[in-house]
Amino acid sequence: MAMYPGVSLITLGVADVARARGFYERLGWRLSQGASTPEVAFFMLNNVALALFGRADMLEDAGFDAQQAQHAQQARAAPSVILAQNHPAPQAVDRAISAAVAAGGSLVKQGQPTAWGGYHGMVADPDGHVWELAWNPAFPLSPSGEVELPP
Amino acid sequence: MAMYPGVSLITLGVADVARARGFYERLGWRLSQGASTPEVAFFMLNNVALALFGRADMLEDAGFDAQQAQHAQQARAAPSVILAQNHPAPQAVDRAISAAVAAGGSLVKQGQPTAWGGYHGMVADPDGHVWELAWNPAFPLSPSGEVELPP
Repeated sequence: MAMYPGVSLITLGVADVARARGFYERLGWRLSQGASTPEVAFFMLNNVALALFGRADMLEDAGFDAQQAQHAQQARAAPSVILAQNHPAPQAVDRAISAAVAAGGSLVKQGQPTAWGGYHGMVADPDGHVWELAWNPAFPLSPSGEVELPP
Repeated sequence: MAMYPGVSLITLGVADVARARGFYERLGWRLSQGASTPEVAFFMLNNVALALFGRADMLEDAGFDAQQAQHAQQARAAPSVILAQNHPAPQAVDRAISAAVAAGGSLVKQGQPTAWGGYHGMVADPDGHVWELAWNPAFPLSPSGEVELPP
C-alpha cells in the first residue's frame, strides 16, 4: 500500500525551541545532537522520533499563513502537531500523497525537493490533521517506518 | 526514569469519528474492532497506536472547556492531538506525572481512575502539548512502550 500504517516522526510546533528542548532534556530524553540545530531539536524515542520546531517555521514549511492562523477561523486549520511518515524514495512519497488524496485527504503541499536535501509533501485528513510524507536520505529507515537519528 | 522516551498512542481529535475512520480505512489501515466503539476508533500501526476521538469528548476528558476552546485566546491551549505513553501500573503513572511537573511541565489532570477501567493523568509541556500518562489493563504493553490492540 502506498501510505503504510506507521509514524516515523512527530513534530511539535513550539514557541521557543530552546525552552521546549530543555523540558524534554530534563525528562532524561536523549537529544540527537547530530540532527539538531538551534531551529529544530530532534529526540530519538523508543519507537518514533520527536522534533521540536518553531511553530511559525513549521506552518511556513507547510504553506500555512502564520498571521492568519492566529485568527479564530483559521485556528482549526493550522496544526500545532504534524505527523510524518518517511519513505525510501521520492517516488514512494508521490505515491503516498496520491493514495491519501484518493482516500479523501486534501493536498497541503505537493511533493517537492526540500532545502534539507530530501523530498516531501503534505496531506491533511478530513479534520485537518497534517501528515508529512518524506524521503530523507540522512535518516536511515526501517521496514516498519522507524527512522534512525544520528547520536 | 519515570517518564520514558516513547509514545504509545496518538489521539487525533476529530469532528466526526465515522468520517475520520473512513479516511484511514481507505488507506488500507487495520481498524482494531475489539477496541473501537462508535465514539472512538483505534488503529494499530507498525510502531504506535492511533486513536480517532471526537474533539469535544477529547477536550472534556482532558478537562478543557470545549466552548471556551473555540475562542481565539483559548485556541492555543486546547489541543487537537494528544500523545499518550502507557505505563505498567497506576503508581508508575503517578511517578511519570511527578517527573514531568518537576521538569517544568504543567499538570492538566491529576492521576485518577478512568471510566474505561484504567488509570490516567495528563501533563502539558511548556507549549501546551498534552501528554496522557496511562495504565490500561486492556492493552498489553511492550518494554519500549508499544501497546498491543485487540484485532
